Amino acid sequence: MVAERVRCRGLQDRICSADAAASLIKDGMTLGMSGFTRAGEAKAVPMALAERARTEPLKITLMTGASLGNDLDKTLAEAHVLARRMPFQAAPYLRNAINKGEVMFIDHHLSETVEHLRTRQLGPVDIAVIEAVAITEQGGIVPTTSVGNSASFAILADKVIVEINLSQPQALEGLHDIYIPTRRPAREPIPVVAPESRIGLPYIPIDPDKIAAIVLTEKHDSSSTVLPPDADTRAIAGHLAEFMGHEVRHGRLPETLQPFQVGIGTIANAVMTGFIDTPFHNLTMYSEVLQDSTFDLFDAGKLDFASGSSITLSAARYQEVLPKLPDYKSRLVLRPQEISNHPEVIRRLGIICVNTALEFDIYGNVNSTHVGGTKMMNGIGGSGDFARNGFMSIFVTKSIAKGGNISSVVPMVSHVDHTEHDVDILVTEQGLADLRGLAPRERAETILARCVHPSYRDAMADYMARATARGGHTPHVIEEALSWHARLRETGHMLDGAAA
Amino acid sequence: MVAERVRCRGLQDRICSADAAASLIKDGMTLGMSGFTRAGEAKAVPMALAERARTEPLKITLMTGASLGNDLDKTLAEAHVLARRMPFQAAPYLRNAINKGEVMFIDHHLSETVEHLRTRQLGPVDIAVIEAVAITEQGGIVPTTSVGNSASFAILADKVIVEINLSQPQALEGLHDIYIPTRRPAREPIPVVAPESRIGLPYIPIDPDKIAAIVLTEKHDSSSTVLPPDADTRAIAGHLAEFMGHEVRHGRLPETLQPFQVGIGTIANAVMTGFIDTPFHNLTMYSEVLQDSTFDLFDAGKLDFASGSSITLSAARYQEVLPKLPDYKSRLVLRPQEISNHPEVIRRLGIICVNTALEFDIYGNVNSTHVGGTKMMNGIGGSGDFARNGFMSIFVTKSIAKGGNISSVVPMVSHVDHTEHDVDILVTEQGLADLRGLAPRERAETILARCVHPSYRDAMADYMARATARGGHTPHVIEEALSWHARLRETGHMLDGAAA
Repeated sequence: MVAERVRCRGLQDRICSADAAASLIKDGMTLGMSGFTRAGEAKAVPMALAERARTEPLKITLMTGASLGNDLDKTLAEAHVLARRMPFQAAPYLRNAINKGEVMFIDHHLSETVEHLRTRQLGPVDIAVIEAVAITEQGGIVPTTSVGNSASFAILADKVIVEINLSQPQALEGLHDIYIPTRRPAREPIPVVAPESRIGLPYIPIDPDKIAAIVLTEKHDSSSTVLPPDADTRAIAGHLAEFMGHEVRHGRLPETLQPFQVGIGTIANAVMTGFIDTPFHNLTMYSEVLQDSTFDLFDAGKLDFASGSSITLSAARYQEVLPKLPDYKSRLVLRPQEISNHPEVIRRLGIICVNTALEFDIYGNVNSTHVGGTKMMNGIGGSGDFARNGFMSIFVTKSIAKGGNISSVVPMVSHVDHTEHDVDILVTEQGLADLRGLAPRERAETILARCVHPSYRDAMADYMARATARGGHTPHVIEEALSWHARLRETGHMLDGAAA
Repeated sequence: MVAERVRCRGLQDRICSADAAASLIKDGMTLGMSGFTRAGEAKAVPMALAERARTEPLKITLMTGASLGNDLDKTLAEAHVLARRMPFQAAPYLRNAINKGEVMFIDHHLSETVEHLRTRQLGPVDIAVIEAVAITEQGGIVPTTSVGNSASFAILADKVIVEINLSQPQALEGLHDIYIPTRRPAREPIPVVAPESRIGLPYIPIDPDKIAAIVLTEKHDSSSTVLPPDADTRAIAGHLAEFMGHEVRHGRLPETLQPFQVGIGTIANAVMTGFIDTPFHNLTMYSEVLQDSTFDLFDAGKLDFASGSSITLSAARYQEVLPKLPDYKSRLVLRPQEISNHPEVIRRLGIICVNTALEFDIYGNVNSTHVGGTKMMNGIGGSGDFARNGFMSIFVTKSIAKGGNISSVVPMVSHVDHTEHDVDILVTEQGLADLRGLAPRERAETILARCVHPSYRDAMADYMARATARGGHTPHVIEEALSWHARLRETGHMLDGAAA
């Protein structure tokens, strides 16, 4: 069994315990670890690290692909191992530590981290810890359910620890396409010209001498936390499907539409599942995370091909999909997040991008990350990579939150992740606002009419009227622009005298 | 003379007066016009349009490359010809009309306008009006001092009016490189791999039958309004040159640096001129607008090659450079702004991007466009194309404005054009803040220490202390975050009790 997984001659001698492997990691080091939205993270070594931190001072900078499963970010933060963390996280305990200023979190576009590492605009990676299904005869590392930043971490790090996860099916081998951009000044075009383009190797090519330790594990990926569709998410999906139909009828999109990117989470997932009941066909995805909806669309015969950087499924779907991987494999590819999210490829392929907003404002600026303008939720993730360079940038959210105490549409967002320049379409359960080619005053009228919840419409219309009376390309009553957020903080409701 | 300029057989019959050509333009039409930062705009037809609007109702949508010279935007706005205007302008009269809500202005990333037109996400172009030095034997249009959006306008429009400008030297022929991305789903990589790559044609290829009218003109381009360097701009240039030296010494950049993009305006121009007195050599530019500094660097033997979308010079430099164009020509290329600003190429070449901020905040968010959060200045231009996808994104500004009544560094910007995710380096005359790899709280400390004017440091430190006490990844006192802007509006000074 192990011989099938560690095929490079001589490397089997480096199999050791997680504790022994973790002992290579010293206080102050920078770790590059596999893992992208709960998929394919190294599982044993970080646990051993957290354990060690109980008895000795141990603070590290942890870089990953994106968020981790198996409560690893929680465990590491509780053990105070994390001095710095990038480029994304989604763990409530870590989030609190970040918001208290205990962990320095660098919220990066997911396509950019390894570009900054490679050009040494970020400090060096001391050790990479990569989950793998196998090490090839030549010492190549075959990732598991995600690629993320693993390839560049392994290539750039001084030493590599590989966690061979025996519970991950060997059928994953052949799924990955590892391509690293060539060095400047002779960098060449990235030759992806369609979601199904394969341009690299099925493993991470490194010098096997750099593999300092190999740990055997069996722990599964955590399942996703996506909730089933509800009336609101179904309404959002309906508005978007209707809009796509409108674009097809006007000859602006073919019936196969264009490749989709879909952000993580319940709403975005529901939007994709909603395409099952539409006339669109032979769809493709060029996305980051392949979720339940990807396989729902495969099974419904709607989807031809999906490119991503990870596979993150619900518990039930995980049980179904992994054994059937050989059936899906010819229609799937997992790439480094630098390539899945690369501006060059996103613009070339003409991606339709669907991401979730925390809040947006009447002029179309989107906040994806900061609650109340100050508290980090998860991070910008890949939304900026896609929104900025895609064919059509769509943001979805429910129009209200917390039982109506919060309007997701506000006079001015309290933090901007995506500017008005990068936002084409906004959708709430109330309706869809098509902002393409509109000036700010026109955007505001459209968003008010289409997206704002009825309980906030009068207050918003009142704000807009008073702002417009003052003039400006983007009218605001500047001393009131963030008053909804200030009031929420003080009274628990965004509107005056409306507290529950 | 005219036969040399209009070489396509039969087309000389279409030479007519500007009034006759303008009569093709009807009320409600969309015009795509040449012109990019005062260079190469059509000059006679828009004047004839403005004249016509005195006696008949005439409202159009005007698209250009960027801003126009010869007071054209002013004249057209005064004549109430402009219903809609995109993607950029820089004319005080038009700016006022936009801020009053009289002209709907769509502030677009300069790389995106023709992509939206081509995919019909923006409505059709009825007529293109293009300034040219010549029409070739095959009917190809040879632009003058800018390419801008002219190629796609001419290709997509129903009819084309060409203004042959006899005052523009014929030596401009051969300077341009016209490349149009291939159609999806078969779009191919854009083959620019270095600033000097030539990938297209030296003229705009269109069916000569579409050329409905040809007008002969002789008017010069307007000269740029760049001011000479002062102590502050010299200090900014000094900080930046010192920083580049630091990057070279640490092996992160070669002595030839990487290709530069430099925004328009006095400060950015001074920064480039500042490189004359540095050890860096064999520099290259992959930029939008080639300004005086480009030719200063050529003449100093510092610059090997410059790629841009227009040439915009001061009056004195214009007189010197145009006659010597044959000498410079092998080191210059002018491209469509879609290509000069293309995310694919910008990321590939690893551009060092220097743009001017109107204001930035302690967390590194940049406002490039909106005075007081509401009034449009010029537009985002290409700054977003470069900042988002470049190798290193640098924003420069003087730390105070209006004699100290305004701090260019504020607790929270009143409008965001470039988010914290897209901003690496900030420079004022006070110093340089290197934000790479820093969390928001660290960014704030660095910006306070390096960039804020002494007269605002105490107030900023006080805000930061109170914000940090409240917690959050990006601490703010949300009800006070825009109070400096509100106070400026009320009292004429950003700080309490400090009004002059």
